[in-house]
Amino acid sequence: MAIKTQLSPLLLCLLISAAATTTTAYGRKPHSRRPCNELVFFFHDILFNGHNYNNATAAIVGSPSWGNKTTVATPFNFGDMVVFDDPITLDNNLHSDPVGRAQGMYFYDQKNIYGAWLGFSFLFNSTSYVGTLNFAGADPIMNKTRDISVVGGTGDFFMARGVATLMTDAFEGDVYFRLRVDIKLYECW
Amino acid sequence: MAIKTQLSPLLLCLLISAAATTTTAYGRKPHSRRPCNELVFFFHDILFNGHNYNNATAAIVGSPSWGNKTTVATPFNFGDMVVFDDPITLDNNLHSDPVGRAQGMYFYDQKNIYGAWLGFSFLFNSTSYVGTLNFAGADPIMNKTRDISVVGGTGDFFMARGVATLMTDAFEGDVYFRLRVDIKLYECW
Amino acid sequence: MAIKTQLSPLLLCLLISAAATTTTAYGRKPHSRRPCNELVFFFHDILFNGHNYNNATAAIVGSPSWGNKTTVATPFNFGDMVVFDDPITLDNNLHSDPVGRAQGMYFYDQKNIYGAWLGFSFLFNSTSYVGTLNFAGADPIMNKTRDISVVGGTGDFFMARGVATLMTDAFEGDVYFRLRVDIKLYECW
Repeated sequence: MAIKTQLSPLLLCLLISAAATTTTAYGRKPHSRRPCNELVFFFHDILFNGHNYNNATAAIVGSPSWGNKTTVATPFNFGDMVVFDDPITLDNNLHSDPVGRAQGMYFYDQKNIYGAWLGFSFLFNSTSYVGTLNFAGADPIMNKTRDISVVGGTGDFFMARGVATLMTDAFEGDVYFRLRVDIKLYECW
Repeated sequence: MAIKTQLSPLLLCLLISAAATTTTAYGRKPHSRRPCNELVFFFHDILFNGHNYNNATAAIVGSPSWGNKTTVATPFNFGDMVVFDDPITLDNNLHSDPVGRAQGMYFYDQKNIYGAWLGFSFLFNSTSYVGTLNFAGADPIMNKTRDISVVGGTGDFFMARGVATLMTDAFEGDVYFRLRVDIKLYECW
Repeated sequence: MAIKTQLSPLLLCLLISAAATTTTAYGRKPHSRRPCNELVFFFHDILFNGHNYNNATAAIVGSPSWGNKTTVATPFNFGDMVVFDDPITLDNNLHSDPVGRAQGMYFYDQKNIYGAWLGFSFLFNSTSYVGTLNFAGADPIMNKTRDISVVGGTGDFFMARGVATLMTDAFEGDVYFRLRVDIKLYECW
């Protein structure tokens, strides 16, 4: 009886430790889906159209055989590949002080609807943040919200991973659009 | 003696906990390489050649100085950059009901052999899956199998990471190829 | 009294286990920032300029409306998109035996300074390493060091994640540059 009562804490402990170890061992982590960091930004894309070089933050650098570099391709911009260096702001005003830059590319990859794919980074170098976040994913533009992956980060966002939800906050013809990005990080180091 | 027997469960427990904590603390996780999810899909790429717009699921949007947008470059397609929106099927039949779309880009980056690099997403919106998987990696096409990374996921594949093995299941000239993709996820949330 | 002393190891154990579980459960892992693997490589990029096909390891495949495929665009190469298959060496000598290949793309995305974005892989198939590492991130070239993300790996680098620091080790005009890459992996399986 004395042996039994003395062993039980150890047994319980072993069971608890074993349970914790097992759940991580097979990749099925007992992760909460509660973010460890949440950030909201806007970024602003002004596409070069042959006449707006000084204001433009983006340019078509690849296009399909029927396209060109100063007009979006018809239909649905399909085949246009764009590189960009867009200001990031905290609100939806293009003229607010930028808090960083969104740099990378997007390209339109659908023939029958507006759809794009994005590979880009957020670069911060301010009093609030120093570092980068790297993103990749599909952007089915006509959906109200689209989720892409935060695939990594550096500096203040060292080793970050998460999900970013894109929303088209505004667009004006083929030249300007503004995206709202709700970033939720689930891995923070 | 009584003290000794009463402390030993605690000591053991501390040692066990310490061991578990230490292994994770330095990134050397005691991960099993047993997948937490396994999926097999096929996707089908029909490249635009100037005459097959209706059937085409992909188009050349960048090419080297000696290339063009309706014929693959010689040699080895080197320098061709392609955007695609390909149907995903559960078997190797192009005409099977698609279960999703593979959207993104590939480009041929080798001069002396067929080799490509891929950045793309799988988009699912069916009764089976709702969500996306994001991929990146090199595709040395002449190898029977090629491993790329699953760098993230959303929806049903929230925060997924893993490895996808590509196999060329068929190709017909320069216009059609079919890839088999064996996806093994090792991080599932 | 006897009950109290017998319960205390169990209580402590529970508290310790709970603490360990809680910290991981919300993504705030108690990660050390000590790398689990460190690697240093150089890679060498020789851009095709219309006259150096045999030596070239990279080619412009996309360019802005004012650019072309054999000369970098003015100003700041903005809009040039390049695919590459560069030798990786252990030292800064272009003629050292390559230990792998760096394959992927970079593009210049800034109008007012040299800046690029990179998506690429390291491919190893040697006695030292067999496998791949996949990278993505922004490269503000004029900074002495730039951090990008290791977003995944395969083979010997199965499921790797980390940070790679880029340094421009040399450049010669518009045709040759050499990058030093200090890779620190923080997730090793």
